[in-house]
Amino acid sequence: MSEIDFIRDTLEGLAGYVRGRYAERGAVEVRSKTRATDLLTEVDLAVQRKTEALLAEAYPADPFVAEEGDRAKPPADPEGRCWIMDPIDGTQNFVRGLFPAFGIALAFAVGGRVQAGGVCLPVTGDLFLAERGAGAFRNGARLDVSGVTALDEAWIEVDLGGPPGRKRILRVAGPLIDAAGAVRCHCAAVIGLCSVACGDLDGYVHTGLNAWDYAAAQVIVEEAGGRTSQFDGRPLRLFGDNDGIVASNRTVHDAIIRSLAV
Amino acid sequence: MSEIDFIRDTLEGLAGYVRGRYAERGAVEVRSKTRATDLLTEVDLAVQRKTEALLAEAYPADPFVAEEGDRAKPPADPEGRCWIMDPIDGTQNFVRGLFPAFGIALAFAVGGRVQAGGVCLPVTGDLFLAERGAGAFRNGARLDVSGVTALDEAWIEVDLGGPPGRKRILRVAGPLIDAAGAVRCHCAAVIGLCSVACGDLDGYVHTGLNAWDYAAAQVIVEEAGGRTSQFDGRPLRLFGDNDGIVASNRTVHDAIIRSLAV
Repeated sequence: MSEIDFIRDTLEGLAGYVRGRYAERGAVEVRSKTRATDLLTEVDLAVQRKTEALLAEAYPADPFVAEEGDRAKPPADPEGRCWIMDPIDGTQNFVRGLFPAFGIALAFAVGGRVQAGGVCLPVTGDLFLAERGAGAFRNGARLDVSGVTALDEAWIEVDLGGPPGRKRILRVAGPLIDAAGAVRCHCAAVIGLCSVACGDLDGYVHTGLNAWDYAAAQVIVEEAGGRTSQFDGRPLRLFGDNDGIVASNRTVHDAIIRSLAV
Repeated sequence: MSEIDFIRDTLEGLAGYVRGRYAERGAVEVRSKTRATDLLTEVDLAVQRKTEALLAEAYPADPFVAEEGDRAKPPADPEGRCWIMDPIDGTQNFVRGLFPAFGIALAFAVGGRVQAGGVCLPVTGDLFLAERGAGAFRNGARLDVSGVTALDEAWIEVDLGGPPGRKRILRVAGPLIDAAGAVRCHCAAVIGLCSVACGDLDGYVHTGLNAWDYAAAQVIVEEAGGRTSQFDGRPLRLFGDNDGIVASNRTVHDAIIRSLAV
């Protein structure tokens, strides 16, 4: 089985489980991690465990990097093969929220470069998939970023994130928030990035994400014709230190970067 | 027919039409009003016209205040009966957007006080209804606001709105954005306000809304146990000049107001 097929089958298998637990989310066990609104549910853990079991079967030699527990560290060999998962990106939105803005993200990388990625939005049923060099797709339909070029006509997701980074994003992205045509904040990286890939948004900005937050969606954005970078325009380093992340439709990328007060 | 029954029947009748047009939104005629991202579609106009016709039939003597065209002005007699509509609140989100955060809002007021209101979210199928003194409901189930009391555990929608007011909301709500447990921005007043009513959010802040943006949702929030006010805590005046709007679960209201740099 190819890696992209494994990603598709795994996400399709998990979507129903997560959708069902979301429907009965009042009964889901939730606990706080570092602060009151940094949440972890039993569903995050179950999704990660299920994927771990499937990987152990299909690719027993491959390392698995994921958000929860002791999987949350770079692979021992950064040059080798690696699987990267965020079991639920947007856990806050899973626990609360009229609009269920959360997704499951699974990526496959080799040598620190994402080769394939998938994002599943369990409630809408959308499945985004991309393989390096082969395009990006939503439910089988080819994706293209938007053609917007002017910042004052651009829709930007400014991810305000949790309290620790909020002062910085307000300072850095303040001029962007001021200049953009429209600003949104769903606080789920996969939502912001996949929206850029399918042309619903023109840009996405966050002060700092972990590999599992963006790896899968990064290849989806790039294969849809978009661009990703750090705040200063340098490429993202999958397991390195990045100063911020900008994703865009490519045509508005430089204008976003110029607007940032880094 | 009672006013709340008229609201229910009208919104239920409109939901299918709007959902259908949303599904084929690539073919919907869109034009800009005051600037590139201030959008008006043929669907906004059709919803308003359909409602106008239904009102002319059911309540021929009542004035009708609505967002589009020459309906966008206060009624001649502020002490009399009045119907207030936003045909689509969140038109931007109707035109673009993975998460269809828009709704139809219809309210009935007497003497500048909202007596009944309904908000329909066509894509999710949710119908919020409230009659003064009789509680608020979503799809028939009674609504209650959340019990969150601390600002650093509160989820706040800070509506960044369009470019004209964005400098002010960033200045006024900057400390709130910094202090809140979680911050979201869907830029659709009905979404923010109904989320407060059903306990998915704890507060909502906007620098300035028109009567049609908030009238229906205001009574829904209040009948769910929440509170609404201007930035300084004074009550909203339906057709008067208001300095900002704050809606909350009531328990976190004063903390929100204290945080604002008005």
